[in-house]
Amino acid sequence: MGILDNLNSSAPLKRMSVDELNSLCGEIRERLLEVALKQGGHLSSNLGTVELTVALHSVFSTPEDRIIWDVGHQAYVHKMLTGRNRDMDTLREYGGISGFPRRRESEHDSFGAGHASTSLSAAIGLATADKAAGRKSYTVAVAGDGAFTGGMIYEALNNMAGKDLRLIVVLNDNEMSISPNVGAMNRYFARLRTSPRYLGMKYRLKKAFAAIPLIGKPLTKLARGIKNATKRLVWRDNFFENLGLNYYGPVDGYDIKRLQGVFKDAMLDRKCSIVHVQTRKGKGYAPAEEQPDKYHGVPKGGVFGNGKSFSSVFGDIMCRRATEDKRLFAITAAMGEGTGLSEFARRFPERFSDVGIAEEHALTYGAGLSAGGMHPVFAVYSTFAQRSYDQLIHDAALQGLPMILALDRAGIVGEDGPTHHGLFDVGFTLQIPECEVYSPECYEDMEISFARCFEFGKLAVVRYPRGGEKSYDRSIYTSVGGFLSYADIGADRPRLAIVTYGRLCFNALRAAELLFDRGVSVRVIRVLRLKPLDMGTLASLLEDCYALYFPEEGMRSGGFAERTVASLAEKGLLQGKAVRIRAVDDRFVTHGSTDRLFEDCGFLPEQMADEAARLLEK
Amino acid sequence: MGILDNLNSSAPLKRMSVDELNSLCGEIRERLLEVALKQGGHLSSNLGTVELTVALHSVFSTPEDRIIWDVGHQAYVHKMLTGRNRDMDTLREYGGISGFPRRRESEHDSFGAGHASTSLSAAIGLATADKAAGRKSYTVAVAGDGAFTGGMIYEALNNMAGKDLRLIVVLNDNEMSISPNVGAMNRYFARLRTSPRYLGMKYRLKKAFAAIPLIGKPLTKLARGIKNATKRLVWRDNFFENLGLNYYGPVDGYDIKRLQGVFKDAMLDRKCSIVHVQTRKGKGYAPAEEQPDKYHGVPKGGVFGNGKSFSSVFGDIMCRRATEDKRLFAITAAMGEGTGLSEFARRFPERFSDVGIAEEHALTYGAGLSAGGMHPVFAVYSTFAQRSYDQLIHDAALQGLPMILALDRAGIVGEDGPTHHGLFDVGFTLQIPECEVYSPECYEDMEISFARCFEFGKLAVVRYPRGGEKSYDRSIYTSVGGFLSYADIGADRPRLAIVTYGRLCFNALRAAELLFDRGVSVRVIRVLRLKPLDMGTLASLLEDCYALYFPEEGMRSGGFAERTVASLAEKGLLQGKAVRIRAVDDRFVTHGSTDRLFEDCGFLPEQMADEAARLLEK
Repeated sequence: MGILDNLNSSAPLKRMSVDELNSLCGEIRERLLEVALKQGGHLSSNLGTVELTVALHSVFSTPEDRIIWDVGHQAYVHKMLTGRNRDMDTLREYGGISGFPRRRESEHDSFGAGHASTSLSAAIGLATADKAAGRKSYTVAVAGDGAFTGGMIYEALNNMAGKDLRLIVVLNDNEMSISPNVGAMNRYFARLRTSPRYLGMKYRLKKAFAAIPLIGKPLTKLARGIKNATKRLVWRDNFFENLGLNYYGPVDGYDIKRLQGVFKDAMLDRKCSIVHVQTRKGKGYAPAEEQPDKYHGVPKGGVFGNGKSFSSVFGDIMCRRATEDKRLFAITAAMGEGTGLSEFARRFPERFSDVGIAEEHALTYGAGLSAGGMHPVFAVYSTFAQRSYDQLIHDAALQGLPMILALDRAGIVGEDGPTHHGLFDVGFTLQIPECEVYSPECYEDMEISFARCFEFGKLAVVRYPRGGEKSYDRSIYTSVGGFLSYADIGADRPRLAIVTYGRLCFNALRAAELLFDRGVSVRVIRVLRLKPLDMGTLASLLEDCYALYFPEEGMRSGGFAERTVASLAEKGLLQGKAVRIRAVDDRFVTHGSTDRLFEDCGFLPEQMADEAARLLEK
Repeated sequence: MGILDNLNSSAPLKRMSVDELNSLCGEIRERLLEVALKQGGHLSSNLGTVELTVALHSVFSTPEDRIIWDVGHQAYVHKMLTGRNRDMDTLREYGGISGFPRRRESEHDSFGAGHASTSLSAAIGLATADKAAGRKSYTVAVAGDGAFTGGMIYEALNNMAGKDLRLIVVLNDNEMSISPNVGAMNRYFARLRTSPRYLGMKYRLKKAFAAIPLIGKPLTKLARGIKNATKRLVWRDNFFENLGLNYYGPVDGYDIKRLQGVFKDAMLDRKCSIVHVQTRKGKGYAPAEEQPDKYHGVPKGGVFGNGKSFSSVFGDIMCRRATEDKRLFAITAAMGEGTGLSEFARRFPERFSDVGIAEEHALTYGAGLSAGGMHPVFAVYSTFAQRSYDQLIHDAALQGLPMILALDRAGIVGEDGPTHHGLFDVGFTLQIPECEVYSPECYEDMEISFARCFEFGKLAVVRYPRGGEKSYDRSIYTSVGGFLSYADIGADRPRLAIVTYGRLCFNALRAAELLFDRGVSVRVIRVLRLKPLDMGTLASLLEDCYALYFPEEGMRSGGFAERTVASLAEKGLLQGKAVRIRAVDDRFVTHGSTDRLFEDCGFLPEQMADEAARLLEK
């Protein structure tokens, strides 16, 4: 390599020729492949935006100017160009470079992201603050066409227009979000794309009309009418211009010179501008160009797994159910593949809907389907379900409408980090009146959970983690009804109970084995249904234990443990007992491998064994 | 009255002449005034949509056809026409007719609402379900231009286009949401409005172009170019048509005959349609026409209060602060008046932003301002803040950006009912890492809370109820630091502690007085800062009490009481103590006067005294 290796900031880009910048892009692409295939991460979107990012940095100067990356998974090149190229070898590792922009990581990351459609809102805020402070900085928000399926973008556009801000929106149109894009806006973008030299045509039209001579009385009126009406229409024909923005495009996202020119033009505007750039996911790497979906995120080492997972089992459950229940309907918000619904979508296309990155709409659309007698299941990652919190309460639960929320990626997700961990869902779903909540730790329990939810006539949630079940002998558990089971590990009557749910059951069992080695008998209580909790059965299981340990892979506040401990206290069942909750307490969890993050949270078996043992000493 | 009194369903409307329908509208307007001024409620929006509602019911047949009212406060006429006219005398009373559509109230209310921008999503769901079931019903969603400032609408539009559904959207364009409307879409609607006979013009234009003769070679090319380009532009000039919807309008919302005609045309479309109807809030009642803002909601008895309230005190705090802190910035989502920010908006227009009904954007916009060094305060009703739950976590808290959330209408709001009660916010804000949460019960504490939040360098929340503080002598409380104070009521050392926050402190004190009459001494502990809680100080206050009673005006799950009880249990501080939580447990609270709803929840002093006394018997 040559240029990239010696680049400590993006300042030299401003002096480079287009040829040099293109060479740099070649180096960056090689480096991207090297990094992403070794460390895992988002590949297609970064390969697609190399020239765009280089062009941006050759015109704008961060951190004074601000570049805000929507979703943020396409910011690798930006990181390489802002002094972090060498650090990219630690990408997504614990303590290493984040896979998303992160304010704490660099002053060049002016606004973090992970969820979609936030960049325009943040950009208006930053540009407004700059204006108030008299700074001459530019703010550039780069958002994919996928982000334009999210409603927040329109709330922002609605507020951006007419504002005198140094604000440029780059619509990075790659015709995909994570899955191929859906919806009317996307078709609209396609129409803009197929109008080559669109601005040029408009310009010529206006000139032509100015030249039309108005000859003779009868003609005059018609001609003037046509002229005026058409002029108005010419100015009105573009959605963005309708909203009071300057529209530039479409621009070839691989033509650096043209990109530079358009950015410089947009800088001169008094109005906010939108620059429509066409790119292609995976550009320059054949496997990713051919399967951008697959190469959206690549696993560490570049080898794709093909095994069974909670997501695939969910997909199987849905396909089986669909054949017997003709009213079953599956909704996803741009995560058909990720949530395991690809096969369902193929087999039951008329009962499958990908609404784009639109979790608010997804939920209320589902509530509408339910009100009409269908049986909707909304499959969504836990962290993105936060977007539909109000709709869960206001549209589904309040109206008592039956609906299932399949919450994938619940708990710690690993390398994607704090924007993607599903640590809040237990708290916010337990809050919701009359909603049942299940947290299976294995495929069998997942089947049991969904079977129950399909019969339940109200809102129900099944939450499960990223990846697959641990394989071990579960016959060790004794089922006692109420969606509770337990395993006693040790020779004596256990004095210590570990109460948990989901995949921490495995760690609890391991901890119990470690304690057994130390001569301590332990009862592990596995909770499948978090709400409603069969308190009578749980109480009887806890009766003889005087130390109660509650590990929980989620936020402590509002979680299962707090709720259960408070209930036990109210019933007077904690008298003479020692209690400890181990959950994520008032902080965010960083990125890294799930095992490393478990250690960070105190969830490793050794840590749990130690902490539980200390409880016995009380 | 004549027609309305004898109307048990909307079926007879289908046989009435336009003159008869207009007479009916007159009767309805009188009835609306009678009901709203007596019972309180939403007046302007209902007066504005009388003819529209009558026209809808004269064409469509509920419950087979479905009319979905966005926000829902404009559904009074719909209720009168669907067998509930007599019941309107109980409007908004406990056990009476709800002020919003409610599925449980009538089969004619096909989808409930209260929050904005949900109707299109629900309508797609219902229409899709109808199609799947082979039903020939029509679904009509009626949404105001205010609802079009909310992003969900665009998520829905994006999914609606191109679908072969019997679905009609009525854009009820009254140029206001609750406050005069804001943003680019509104200006765009205005432009459509000012194109009279818009469709007619388009039609004539197309004809004119078809008639242009193409004479002579040189002219041909230009003429054809203009013709084709203009034709394309004519078809492309409307946002809704761009999205693949049929657009009708604008239509005078008081011309019943024209409305009927357009609805019938729209019914024949294979595509989804949008009908742009122009109405005026308060139509037919001069005071409301002149001040639609003021008459948006009228109080019971029709007499407006003018007193001090938590909202007005908040406004005062903001104005005072703004003069010393030039970076203070206030954001509201269409609730400038309601949240007490009118004066601020007048005095500091450049530091005030009403973003429309766009809570998601509001939060992230605020986070952007904060990242740029401003000091944003987002004033929002508790129930609507649910819309920005994800942004609170993902954009504000995770990035450690200082920002204040002023949560108005926290707790029970009374007559507006379950869609408007602010019962979830304590749970969802306590969940958020490093966020401080204050719940003042009086203006003085409110001042203290904001003073602290202005200095705190992170996300902070101040929540306060609708209305004003109770006036009583607060010198009875002894402050002990840690934002805690207490009052001992009784002769002896209290054995019973009531721990609470916000306006329930007053009820707790009253309960203590009742218990004092029964010879029981009580310690009332008033918590101002819910998080972080000074557990050491609280524990020392509780030391000698063996009965702990936690009344909480909010959801039990994830609330302050559960959180505190669990912490006390963990610290071993509940040994030998009896505990009871009294909160809203796993259910929604209906509508009615706040006092009546307090009784419903067990929050009246007598109820609290009784329940606390029973705790002592344990």
